[in-house]
Amino acid sequence: MENMNTLDKLTALVTNDLTLVNKVITKRVHNSINLIPQLSSYIINSGGKRLRPILTLAASKLCNYQGNRHINLAACIEFIHTATLLHDDVVDDSLLRRGLISANTIWGNKSSILVGDFMLSQSLELIVEDGNLQVLEILAHAFSVISEGEILHLSTSNDIYIDKNSYFKIIRSKTATLFAAACQIGAIISNCSNDEELALKNYGINLGIVFQLIDDALDYSAKQKQFGKTLGNDFYNGKITLPMILAFHRSNDKEQEFLFSILKDSGKFNKKTDLIQILHLMEKYKCLEDTIKSAHHYSDIARDALSIFQNSAIKSAMISIIDFCINRKF
Amino acid sequence: MENMNTLDKLTALVTNDLTLVNKVITKRVHNSINLIPQLSSYIINSGGKRLRPILTLAASKLCNYQGNRHINLAACIEFIHTATLLHDDVVDDSLLRRGLISANTIWGNKSSILVGDFMLSQSLELIVEDGNLQVLEILAHAFSVISEGEILHLSTSNDIYIDKNSYFKIIRSKTATLFAAACQIGAIISNCSNDEELALKNYGINLGIVFQLIDDALDYSAKQKQFGKTLGNDFYNGKITLPMILAFHRSNDKEQEFLFSILKDSGKFNKKTDLIQILHLMEKYKCLEDTIKSAHHYSDIARDALSIFQNSAIKSAMISIIDFCINRKF
Repeated sequence: MENMNTLDKLTALVTNDLTLVNKVITKRVHNSINLIPQLSSYIINSGGKRLRPILTLAASKLCNYQGNRHINLAACIEFIHTATLLHDDVVDDSLLRRGLISANTIWGNKSSILVGDFMLSQSLELIVEDGNLQVLEILAHAFSVISEGEILHLSTSNDIYIDKNSYFKIIRSKTATLFAAACQIGAIISNCSNDEELALKNYGINLGIVFQLIDDALDYSAKQKQFGKTLGNDFYNGKITLPMILAFHRSNDKEQEFLFSILKDSGKFNKKTDLIQILHLMEKYKCLEDTIKSAHHYSDIARDALSIFQNSAIKSAMISIIDFCINRKF
Repeated sequence: MENMNTLDKLTALVTNDLTLVNKVITKRVHNSINLIPQLSSYIINSGGKRLRPILTLAASKLCNYQGNRHINLAACIEFIHTATLLHDDVVDDSLLRRGLISANTIWGNKSSILVGDFMLSQSLELIVEDGNLQVLEILAHAFSVISEGEILHLSTSNDIYIDKNSYFKIIRSKTATLFAAACQIGAIISNCSNDEELALKNYGINLGIVFQLIDDALDYSAKQKQFGKTLGNDFYNGKITLPMILAFHRSNDKEQEFLFSILKDSGKFNKKTDLIQILHLMEKYKCLEDTIKSAHHYSDIARDALSIFQNSAIKSAMISIIDFCINRKF
């Protein structure tokens, strides 16, 4: 496995389970209303890494889980994730998703909203099938927090004065919470100790923060072409993320005035020249570097969280995906 | 109570409970992110009749329920309903809702999508608080069916060849299912007999069908001003409902050709003259009258469903709201 990338290592260890998860997903979106399987297959198979369901499978394996509840619950996690992607892309007017034309561009916003709701309903049906109230509680709460995070992010659009605390609150809510829930569920179904459950939850939340920090850095990075999104997508959507917060805080008065004046009405697509100036400021003030440094801080916490587990191939692969999240270019 | 309208009679019988339901809703949308309480209060207090939560309260009362679970569960039903309204208005590009400017017109589609998701999350949190898997099952399944119904409706947009069966499938799914679940939940928490549970479910589903048939008739009715929606909203959105299906099936070749030609690209706002011609056809072929006749058919089924319950003030009020749904002008 030495030559594999760090995600492939983990994927290889749960590959049989992941095949079963994919089967559950495919079965659940099979429907006589053609739009459902068409749009669902498109988004589900459009190069997603299945990171979140893989986390559920991995956490279960780490806890020596012997049953089969993890399959449906991993599928459930992927449905929640995909539903939020579909709604997000409508909210962000995204033209691209993972380098492909976004579902809302092909089928329209209406379809994306409703098929997103359908996916939420399928995640609920899977919780019903699982039949455990503790699992329901974690996933219901996760969905609440995600939803609040999305609204907070929307509410702070174009607000250059947003501080780092609010930013971290947003990414914890909208991204890291589902990573945490994905891991925690693996722990819960395995009946592992409270300490182990908490450890996996912490691993998940910090891994999620790393993931989002890198996502936000990549949005302003020249590596965007590999990433499959529009360069400066967050800027065009007026989404203020850490690189921009750092750029603003470190800018001189004149630069701050420039940033304020262009961000207060960003969201229009005629500002490539402004984006180029912003990229210069980010380079001048090492904003992407420091965003990545911040990701390293959280990656250490994620790694340390797993220390209570005995060494094993799965533990080592779970540590490797922290590096995958740090080093990813897409 | 003789002078009260038929909904007020039922509302009066559950008024204390309804006040508690409203308190639960208000508490749940209280949030430090201002957009959440602002948009939520606007849609929740914008003249909604609270028909669905009232059904949960009424069904509980009919079954002599003595606890307090019905309060949270009625609030849960209202959250699911309001979430679908918010998403619907985005899907339909609605400018008005209940005679007021729609939430998406004021706060934008993005806010409506995300606050809709937030409301779904709150309905889930209420199910968690209730802590009963049977209730979860019914509501999860209802949400699936509603979501499929919405997608089927969207998929059949502008399709004048849609038949009555498909139409009834759509309104059963997207409207009547939540009415049925609202009633069924009242039965379940009361531990009443299977026959009584089924009776309440049937009452709910048929009442829901009545409600939607009248809604669809009103959409083409001159009483629209009182109804608070744009006249011919369904036409402008390419939504084919029973009045249009009847008009098409009863038209001669030339009229069918006209309907086909204008519906295949409806959804543009420059066709008031076409709408007037459609209204003439509907009058000529008694399409609204026959839609209302069909509603009467289902209202009889709804009424008969309650026959297994002993006579009581609440039973009689539940029968009266069937008439309310038939006779409503808004």
